[in-house]
Amino acid sequence: MSDMPAEHFRRSGHEVIDWITDYLTDIRELPVLPRVNPGDVRSALPSSAPEKGEPLDAILRDFREIIVPANTHWNHPRFHAYFSVSASGPGILAESLTAALNVNHMVWKSSPAGSELELVTMDWLRQWLQLPDTYFGAIFDTASISTMHALIAARDFVDPESRARGSLGNLVVYTSQHAHSSVEKGAMAIGIGQDNVRKIAVDDAFRMRPQALREEMVADLAVGKKPCCVVPTVGTTSTTSIDPVAEVVKIANEYGAWIHIDGAYGACAAILPELRSMLDGVEHAHSLVVNPHKWFFTPIDCSVLYTNRPDILRRALSLVPEYLRTGQDDSVVNLMDYGVPLGRRFRSLKLWFVMRYFGLEGFQGILRDHIAWAKELGQQIAAHSKMELAAPHPLSLVCFRMEGPDERSRELMDRVNAGGVAFLSHTVLNGRFAIRLAIGNVRTTREDIQRVWECIQAEACEL
Amino acid sequence: MSDMPAEHFRRSGHEVIDWITDYLTDIRELPVLPRVNPGDVRSALPSSAPEKGEPLDAILRDFREIIVPANTHWNHPRFHAYFSVSASGPGILAESLTAALNVNHMVWKSSPAGSELELVTMDWLRQWLQLPDTYFGAIFDTASISTMHALIAARDFVDPESRARGSLGNLVVYTSQHAHSSVEKGAMAIGIGQDNVRKIAVDDAFRMRPQALREEMVADLAVGKKPCCVVPTVGTTSTTSIDPVAEVVKIANEYGAWIHIDGAYGACAAILPELRSMLDGVEHAHSLVVNPHKWFFTPIDCSVLYTNRPDILRRALSLVPEYLRTGQDDSVVNLMDYGVPLGRRFRSLKLWFVMRYFGLEGFQGILRDHIAWAKELGQQIAAHSKMELAAPHPLSLVCFRMEGPDERSRELMDRVNAGGVAFLSHTVLNGRFAIRLAIGNVRTTREDIQRVWECIQAEACEL
Repeated sequence: MSDMPAEHFRRSGHEVIDWITDYLTDIRELPVLPRVNPGDVRSALPSSAPEKGEPLDAILRDFREIIVPANTHWNHPRFHAYFSVSASGPGILAESLTAALNVNHMVWKSSPAGSELELVTMDWLRQWLQLPDTYFGAIFDTASISTMHALIAARDFVDPESRARGSLGNLVVYTSQHAHSSVEKGAMAIGIGQDNVRKIAVDDAFRMRPQALREEMVADLAVGKKPCCVVPTVGTTSTTSIDPVAEVVKIANEYGAWIHIDGAYGACAAILPELRSMLDGVEHAHSLVVNPHKWFFTPIDCSVLYTNRPDILRRALSLVPEYLRTGQDDSVVNLMDYGVPLGRRFRSLKLWFVMRYFGLEGFQGILRDHIAWAKELGQQIAAHSKMELAAPHPLSLVCFRMEGPDERSRELMDRVNAGGVAFLSHTVLNGRFAIRLAIGNVRTTREDIQRVWECIQAEACEL
Repeated sequence: MSDMPAEHFRRSGHEVIDWITDYLTDIRELPVLPRVNPGDVRSALPSSAPEKGEPLDAILRDFREIIVPANTHWNHPRFHAYFSVSASGPGILAESLTAALNVNHMVWKSSPAGSELELVTMDWLRQWLQLPDTYFGAIFDTASISTMHALIAARDFVDPESRARGSLGNLVVYTSQHAHSSVEKGAMAIGIGQDNVRKIAVDDAFRMRPQALREEMVADLAVGKKPCCVVPTVGTTSTTSIDPVAEVVKIANEYGAWIHIDGAYGACAAILPELRSMLDGVEHAHSLVVNPHKWFFTPIDCSVLYTNRPDILRRALSLVPEYLRTGQDDSVVNLMDYGVPLGRRFRSLKLWFVMRYFGLEGFQGILRDHIAWAKELGQQIAAHSKMELAAPHPLSLVCFRMEGPDERSRELMDRVNAGGVAFLSHTVLNGRFAIRLAIGNVRTTREDIQRVWECIQAEACEL
C-alpha cells in the first residue's frame, strides 16, 4: 500500500475545496450550536478503526454526515461566544500548503523558509503594533503556551539559578481578578504554584487597581516572597477591560519583576492608531502575547509571543543535543532555542497570506466595523426597557443582562442559543450573571448583528 | 473589505490543490536540502507588510518562487534526516477541512464533534497499540509538550501539594543518556531543574541499564531527594535503541515514581505484533507519548499523550473559570481539563482520515517495508569495505560511518546532502561521529533507498 494516487488526490482535493466553498457560502443556514447530546458522535462511529483501508469518498461522506452536523460552527458569522474568531479564505488555503510541505523548522537548516518567514512575519506584525524594534517574536499554538513561556522567562529573570536548581516556591505572580485562567494555570504548570498567584482587585470598570498591586507586592516582600512576574491584560476575557498598562509597568519595574502583557485578543486592536495608547508602557515591559487566530482572521492555531529579552527566554530553555547541531548555529536563529516544543509547524505561512491579502488598511477597516457595531448594539441595549449593559465595551464585546433575577438572563441566552441563530456565552460580574456577545468574524456583517439583536429582543419579550 | 469572494476562493483553491498534486508527484526532482544561505529568504521579502491588500495570485506566486525553493522538503521520499515523517494525501485534505471549520474544542459544547472524535481516535489508536483500556489519550502539538504534561502529572503524583505550593527542588527525573532532549527541557520548564535529571548509563546497544537506574535512585533517596518520574525510551533519537521497559517499570514502581514511556517515534511500530513486546510493562506504567506525525503519515503536528491516571493529570491542571462553565460539565469530557493549552485545534480529524484510509493492515504493511529496507541497507553497509554500522538498527533507522577518522564520515554526509539526492543527519555515539539514515515516508520506495545507497557509495569512493 502507498499514498493516494495523484489523480485521485487531485479529484478529492477539488471536491474538498468545493465543499469548503459551499460551506462558507451557506453557513448562515446552519444552527451555530449543533443539536446533539453527549455521546451522539461517539455512538455513530465504529468502536474500532478498520483493519482494511477505506475509500476516501466514504470518509468524506461520514465527515459531512456525522462530524459537520455535530460541530459548533466557530466560523459562523453569528458565533458570538467566547471570542469570535475566524479562518479567512487565504488562511485556509495557506493551511493546505502547510500540510503539504509538512515542515518542521526546529532549526534553520531544517527549513530556511520556515525559519525566516516566521522572523519576517513577526517583524511585520511588530511594526503594525508599533512595538519597539527590540521585540523578538515567535509563534506558539495558544496564548496559554505563550504565557507559560513568558512565566518561564520571568522566573529565569528573577532567579537565574532556577533552570538548574528548580523552582523554590518563593516566587509570586501578580495579575488581576479578571485575568485569563492561563496565567494561573501557567504558574501551576511551571512550579510557581497556585497559592503564589495574586489576583489584584479591579476598579468598577474591571481594570486592575495599581495601588492594590503595589500593596500586594509590598506585603509579599515583607514575608520574604519575591515578585516574579506582573501580568496586566489588554482586553480581559469577561469584559475586554483594559488594565492601566503604563501605571502597572512603572510599579512592577520598581520591584524588579518581569512584565508580561496579555493582549491575546485585545492587542490586535493596537493596529488602530486611535487605540494604540492601550499598549503605552510596553516599551518598559518584557513580553506580550497576541493571537492572530483571535482577531486577525488566521486559522487556529497561531499565538505570538513577543519579548524584548529573548536572551533570557533562550537562557532559560535552550538545550542543543548533538543530533540537532548544524554548521550554521552561530549565524542563524534556530527557533527551537526559544521554546519548550522542539517541533514547529509552519504557522507563519498562514499569517503571511492573511497579512498580505488584507493589508493593514483591510485589517483596520474590519476591526473598526466590529467596534462600531458593538457600540451601536451597546446603545440599543442601553435604550431597551428590559435590558441593561453589564460592563463598558471598549472593544468589540458587549456584556449585558435582563433586568431582574439572573435566571431570566440565563434563560434568554439559552433560548437564543437553542434557536440556532447565534451562539452567545456568559460570565459573572460582581456576582451577577452577564451575557457576552463577541464580534470578530471576518464574514460578520452589520445585518448579522442586527438579526441577532432582533432575536434577543424577541426572546426577551417571551420571558 | 471582507473575506475572499466565494468563486475566487473556489478557483484559487483548485489551483492550490493542483499545485500540491504536482508538488508531490514531482518532488523527487527537487533537492531535498535547498541551496540557500542564511538571510536569502528574508532579503527577498519586503521589510514591512503591505498597507493595502494584495491579490492572492501574487501571494501564491511568491510562495512558489521564494518559499518553496528555500524549503527543506520534509515530505520528500529521500528526506532521511532526524526522523523521516510524511503528510499523506488524506491527512493533507483533512487539514484543509480543519482550517475551514476552525474548531476550538476546549469544552465539549464548543465542539461536540471535535471533542468526541478526539476520544474516538484515541481509543482506536489505543487498541492498535494494545494498550490497556484504562489508558486515556489526548492530542498535543509535539512530543515535547506531551512529555512536559507527563512530568507535570508525575510531580502531582509524588507531591500532590505542588499544584498549590509550587515545586521545591527536591524531585528527581531519571532517563537514559540517549533520551530525547525534551525530557530534560520539560524538567527545566516545570521547575524540577536540570540538575535533578539523571541520565542513566546505557549498555553497548545504547539501552538504559536497569541496575544503574536502581543505583541512582538509591543514591538520591539517601540524600533526601525524591524520585518523581522515570522515562524509558522506545526508539531513541540517536539510534532507535529500545530501553528494557518491563525491567525499568518494575524498579521505578518499587520507588513510587511515575513512569512515562517516550515512544514518540518507536511506539508507532507497536502496531506490529512481532514488535509489540517492546511495550511490555506499559500496563504497570503511567503514561506514554506516541506521535502520529512521526510514523503514521499524519501531517505535523499531532502528538498523543496516553495516561492511565487521567485523574492525576486533571488534578494537576484543571481550572474552570466561570466563562467556560457549561450545562454539561458533569456528563462530558472537557479536554481543556487535561492540559496547559486552553485552545485546541481539531487535530483528530486528520488522524481519523489517515487511520481509515490506510487501515491497520495498510499501516502494518508500510512499516514492515520500512523496517525491511533498513535491514537490507544495514547488510549492505556491513558488507562494504569502507563503511561500518555504528549501532544496531531494531527499527527503520540505520547509523553508520566511514572507517577511519570522523572527518571522513562528516564529509561523506555533507557531500550526499549537497548533491540534493537525499538529506541525512548525524549523531555522536561513544564519542564518534555517526551518520543517521531514517526511513519513514509513506511515499518512499525500495528504489529510493537503493538510489541513496548508490549515492553514498559513489561519494565514499571519492573520499
